[in-house]
Amino acid sequence: MSHAVSPLAPKSYADMPVIEGVRMATAEAGIKYKNRTDVLLMAFDEPATVAGVFTRSKCPSAPVDFCRANLPHGKAKALIVNSGNANAFTGKKGKAATALTAQSAASTLGAADNEIYLASTGVIGEPLNADKIAAVLPDLATRLTGDFWFEAAKAIMTTDTYPKVATRSANIGDVTVTINGIAKGAGMIAPDMATMLSFVVTDAALPADVLQALLSKGVGPSFNSVTVDSDTSTSDTLMLFATGAAGKRGQSAVAEAGDPALADFASALDNLLLDLAHQVVCDGEGARKMVEVEVSGAVSDESAKRVALSIANSPLVKTAVAGEDANWGRVVMAVGKSGEPADRDLLEISFGDVRVAVEGERDPAYSEDAASAVMKKDKIPVRVKLGLGAGKATVWTCDLTKEYVEINGDYRS
Amino acid sequence: MSHAVSPLAPKSYADMPVIEGVRMATAEAGIKYKNRTDVLLMAFDEPATVAGVFTRSKCPSAPVDFCRANLPHGKAKALIVNSGNANAFTGKKGKAATALTAQSAASTLGAADNEIYLASTGVIGEPLNADKIAAVLPDLATRLTGDFWFEAAKAIMTTDTYPKVATRSANIGDVTVTINGIAKGAGMIAPDMATMLSFVVTDAALPADVLQALLSKGVGPSFNSVTVDSDTSTSDTLMLFATGAAGKRGQSAVAEAGDPALADFASALDNLLLDLAHQVVCDGEGARKMVEVEVSGAVSDESAKRVALSIANSPLVKTAVAGEDANWGRVVMAVGKSGEPADRDLLEISFGDVRVAVEGERDPAYSEDAASAVMKKDKIPVRVKLGLGAGKATVWTCDLTKEYVEINGDYRS
Repeated sequence: MSHAVSPLAPKSYADMPVIEGVRMATAEAGIKYKNRTDVLLMAFDEPATVAGVFTRSKCPSAPVDFCRANLPHGKAKALIVNSGNANAFTGKKGKAATALTAQSAASTLGAADNEIYLASTGVIGEPLNADKIAAVLPDLATRLTGDFWFEAAKAIMTTDTYPKVATRSANIGDVTVTINGIAKGAGMIAPDMATMLSFVVTDAALPADVLQALLSKGVGPSFNSVTVDSDTSTSDTLMLFATGAAGKRGQSAVAEAGDPALADFASALDNLLLDLAHQVVCDGEGARKMVEVEVSGAVSDESAKRVALSIANSPLVKTAVAGEDANWGRVVMAVGKSGEPADRDLLEISFGDVRVAVEGERDPAYSEDAASAVMKKDKIPVRVKLGLGAGKATVWTCDLTKEYVEINGDYRS
Repeated sequence: MSHAVSPLAPKSYADMPVIEGVRMATAEAGIKYKNRTDVLLMAFDEPATVAGVFTRSKCPSAPVDFCRANLPHGKAKALIVNSGNANAFTGKKGKAATALTAQSAASTLGAADNEIYLASTGVIGEPLNADKIAAVLPDLATRLTGDFWFEAAKAIMTTDTYPKVATRSANIGDVTVTINGIAKGAGMIAPDMATMLSFVVTDAALPADVLQALLSKGVGPSFNSVTVDSDTSTSDTLMLFATGAAGKRGQSAVAEAGDPALADFASALDNLLLDLAHQVVCDGEGARKMVEVEVSGAVSDESAKRVALSIANSPLVKTAVAGEDANWGRVVMAVGKSGEPADRDLLEISFGDVRVAVEGERDPAYSEDAASAVMKKDKIPVRVKLGLGAGKATVWTCDLTKEYVEINGDYRS
């Protein structure tokens, strides 16, 4: 299960500032992995407001059910995340495990059960031994610290080859607030919901419904626009917490997501979500290349996104990228199979700045050398113009390599 | 481009009988491949009736456009197939190439242009040099022979590792007729139309509209129920020709596909189509295992098929099969992501006769050894019961191996 760090890993990691009102600790609970941390406790000094988006899977994990049930309450005292076991498709045992973990956390921290949030990632179908989590919680509660984001990101990794962290700052009126986020991938990654686990915290003072509106809007062009393997997890969870500490520094109250005072914050949040989503793609299982698929000229934005995902999810496109082969015929195939409106004889395809096809045939000026040079890069831009309307979308994926097959042929063993 | 014969290849090939009224010849035209045949001429002594189903791609190849235009005429004097170049996304040049090939064939054989059918398979986007095909046609026309089915199947191969042939006989009234078919795969294989190239010929005397009804019905549970990689080709073509020779032997005329006299024929045809479709899956690029996904208890047959395809197209399910890993959690994931009605707590999953999950959790009697034993076989039955209704469907796929990635990383080179 040990794989080399992705060549697409960030050259350096963000320096993560402390956010007032939230503290963390991690532990080695031995749920599945040995000699590494696998439980994260994130605790809020005062109840934080909270928002979440979850997998659209019809077979969601027990923690997803648990979080969905608590979300209307809108307040969070703690988040507990474990790696190594997804607590998905675990039936009554799974529900008992979430209840036990939440009760342990609530009594340890002096909170109500519905102020606790849970996420689990790892193997599906194996009962989760929640006693192991409950056993480490009292000690974790004594070790909470604010300067711990990188360690927090490490504890939630599964097949990820690097921890994913990002930070932004923004102004709400005259007051500067901070947004920190962590995420984990690295397989079973497809849109139609948050995709994998990601937790974002800000010190802004914002009501839960405002957070939810911002998060639901922000997830579309970020986490819901990346795909590693078209497989949607049972456990996808993206949560946003606001400690409200900036209120004590004079941040004025904001009652609506559309308030102009939130424009800078919303932009910073969107940008942070996209940063984390890109980090997930760049750590896709076996990934050696990142592919940016930009579709324009569609009949609508929704149509453009479906065409873009048809390209990004095509095994033949992804293996061609892995082989550094400028096989644009497979892009034609993927456009054609999407089922979306397209006119073969208007289609234009470029790899980076190299136009390879135009008006339904190979570009008369096509140069195999120029196209191949693009394919040798780490990041491959694939641009498709449909020539039908003003709809556009961009999605990101990675190549499909032998390492993906290797990693996923023996994941459980 | 040379790969070992699939371990799932038939142990022996069918002995293909001669069908009265059709003769074939093949040639090495050097379109792309060297030292192998790449053009097939199939000629009908008298105009045959004809039916066809084609790719639903929005970017169909020039030969698909050409065949679609001729089909309403309902008569065929000849079929010309080439491998090595798909003549897809080739614009005006592609259309000129089909016109030139058809004119050459028509004048060589003394036929009308609209009695010619064409199919091309291979690389997309490269102009097809139809002069090379026209150059070999006159010689081919002098070498036509009826006992040539296996050679015909070989000439249309691309990445296939074995030729695909099948034969059946059936009674129409007191007269026995024969049905022969050939097919080629082996990547860019997904339902939503015939999938790859397949040509079926019978000596039965049947009108074109009857053939079309039988073929359109037969394609659903056969070619449209197999998937290698979820990628639908621009060139998928399945055609059925009837020479009518059995009419001279006393076969009575049949005017409707629903005529009870056709029951045995329709059954034999369906059976032959399924045989060829299975051969295509067993020669999926890099395939080492065949997977049969049977979904029952869905709210409708259509819903069952979408769930089955979600499982069969999941890279994580397919890599688990490649690794002989009984990772049924990924089957749960694929059911959940299908978007179709499903209730996690009613779900039952078996690998072969080994039930691995029941009522939303791992089977209490689960045995890793028993499940693993199933995964070591060549053919892996995956059975999913949704427990909601009477809808059912079966689809077939293969595993996703490193060889698939290897084959498709350098296909054009």
